[in-house]
Amino acid sequence: MAEFTSKIRTIEWVDTYSKMVDQTKFPEHFEYVKITTGEGMFNAIKTMIVRGAPAIGIAGAHGIVLFAQELEKQNLTKEEFVKKLLEKSDYMASARPTAVNLMWAVEKQKEIIKNSKSDIKTLIEELKTNGKKMEEDDISINKKIGDYGAQVVPKGATILTHCNAGALATVGYGTALGVVRSAFAKDPDIQVFADETRPRQQGARITTLELTMDSIPVTLITDGMCSYFMKKGMIDMVVTGADRIAANGDSANKIGTYTVAIAAKYHNIPFYIAAPLSTIDTSIKSGDEIVIEERSHEEVTHINGKPICAKGVNIINPGFDVTPNELITGIITEKGILRPDYVKSIARAFNG
Amino acid sequence: MAEFTSKIRTIEWVDTYSKMVDQTKFPEHFEYVKITTGEGMFNAIKTMIVRGAPAIGIAGAHGIVLFAQELEKQNLTKEEFVKKLLEKSDYMASARPTAVNLMWAVEKQKEIIKNSKSDIKTLIEELKTNGKKMEEDDISINKKIGDYGAQVVPKGATILTHCNAGALATVGYGTALGVVRSAFAKDPDIQVFADETRPRQQGARITTLELTMDSIPVTLITDGMCSYFMKKGMIDMVVTGADRIAANGDSANKIGTYTVAIAAKYHNIPFYIAAPLSTIDTSIKSGDEIVIEERSHEEVTHINGKPICAKGVNIINPGFDVTPNELITGIITEKGILRPDYVKSIARAFNG
Repeated sequence: MAEFTSKIRTIEWVDTYSKMVDQTKFPEHFEYVKITTGEGMFNAIKTMIVRGAPAIGIAGAHGIVLFAQELEKQNLTKEEFVKKLLEKSDYMASARPTAVNLMWAVEKQKEIIKNSKSDIKTLIEELKTNGKKMEEDDISINKKIGDYGAQVVPKGATILTHCNAGALATVGYGTALGVVRSAFAKDPDIQVFADETRPRQQGARITTLELTMDSIPVTLITDGMCSYFMKKGMIDMVVTGADRIAANGDSANKIGTYTVAIAAKYHNIPFYIAAPLSTIDTSIKSGDEIVIEERSHEEVTHINGKPICAKGVNIINPGFDVTPNELITGIITEKGILRPDYVKSIARAFNG
Repeated sequence: MAEFTSKIRTIEWVDTYSKMVDQTKFPEHFEYVKITTGEGMFNAIKTMIVRGAPAIGIAGAHGIVLFAQELEKQNLTKEEFVKKLLEKSDYMASARPTAVNLMWAVEKQKEIIKNSKSDIKTLIEELKTNGKKMEEDDISINKKIGDYGAQVVPKGATILTHCNAGALATVGYGTALGVVRSAFAKDPDIQVFADETRPRQQGARITTLELTMDSIPVTLITDGMCSYFMKKGMIDMVVTGADRIAANGDSANKIGTYTVAIAAKYHNIPFYIAAPLSTIDTSIKSGDEIVIEERSHEEVTHINGKPICAKGVNIINPGFDVTPNELITGIITEKGILRPDYVKSIARAFNG
């Protein structure tokens, strides 16, 4: 299969710090920032300098290394060091509650912290090495997701996506946009429709940016327009990412995804989730158990610092919604495309 | 039934000019402008200083009076005056193609221009008088729509609306928000959820403004959120306006309405259109015949003059979409609530 080479590397460990693209500066600027402290990483995750479930996972893993480097300077005993670093790890995991990848990545680092017999200096090297391995794994998993997904993309298809599950949501290839990249590599007639994705406009600010950087044709639409283009026959499939998937396939993703999934169902258009298995939380039975993060009112009431509505209006700003499994045609993972019945296919993917 | 008194008068003929609220200044400013020339009115409609199908109709009627006042100064014969004014009327009707009310109001003025036996000065008075009558009729029709609609609003209901079909889209009471006003007058537990309505954000900029001015509780949500709140059981009904309704009930309204209607259907929530009979164009059989206005790309790519997406992105910006009759629970008019089969109920409303 033809390989697509993306220009984008979202996050990377360099010597003693984490280097990442600052996603709050889009679309005007594409700049890198160095994150050099654990608290700095907590804030980078919280304020969405880094965002996208898989990229947040890597950021969390890096953040633990940064905390470890700080604790190293305190001349603690190994035991004290481990205790404090485990506390810092749990703190790091709390930066964003919905993305399961963050907790998953923090857990992986915690296992090393708990189980390593090495001295502090060597333990830190082990955490660094594990962080780098997670980066490489993320890219290779994304490419597998992309290649499996490309098999169900019709020739010359227009693919609608919501939010950004791209190179900029991962280390460098993308999940939903990984499917787009792999499909585009063998068929240059593939194109993307990107939902703006209010309130934070990740589709407008991020998806259009990364696709134009990689010369993949993209049309920006507002969130309410999806049904209009579906009815006109201009959308062949929908692919989005996910932030957390329950054992029955119910999938939490950026607010608005559920609305797109309902519209796709009404028009008989296939709706796929593209996500690594690490996004699946088999400890929760259904989407009802997924905690939905409520975000600041200002995301809805202001754009670029200017108010867009009257004073005195009420706001509820859920960051995510849950698309029920009945609306999902398939879940594209690095182990192939899972199909209904998801309880069975997900269990098989984890045991197979 | 308790009467609700709104603080808002959107458009009004005053002596020799049309006075209107400048809707491009929302939400920061609530200001009136005087429109004193026909060309000025054409531009006011085109640039959406005045918007909302019924208000545009009145604006068009006023615009013809403004053109008549200008032509009066040219010392034309009555015949020349009539010929030129009819041309100017057709030009006025072309300011926005989708709103049938504009054409309807222009037609009403043209009938007077064609049929009046009066001299030019008196003819202009007749056009003014007719314009003022249309204003009064609009308010009284809106109140009838509101009162019929209020009968199907459940006690303590939360009503979702899209765009602005309010006092600010009409002369002063509203169609969809007329239903809200009439319901609120008898039940202070009524509240509104307002879709932001990208790209032009009429829900955020206009609906939240007019409801807070009239002290009706309103929660602003982004367009993609509607399904989330529907699933949570927080939305009891949807009411929107319409820009043009076909003889079979298919209804063109602001882009995004169709998506909300699909979501309402999926959640078994009643979806109503509130519109005067003048919005129904019985000359078209179905929504397929409704011309959808394509608007400027900048509405999608920029907010408050700042770009929100990458350069080089494609844009398609349909101003409206068509909600098919199968998704519409009822069409609330000044002659009562029309129900499926709409071909029959609409025909009956026009003949009854």
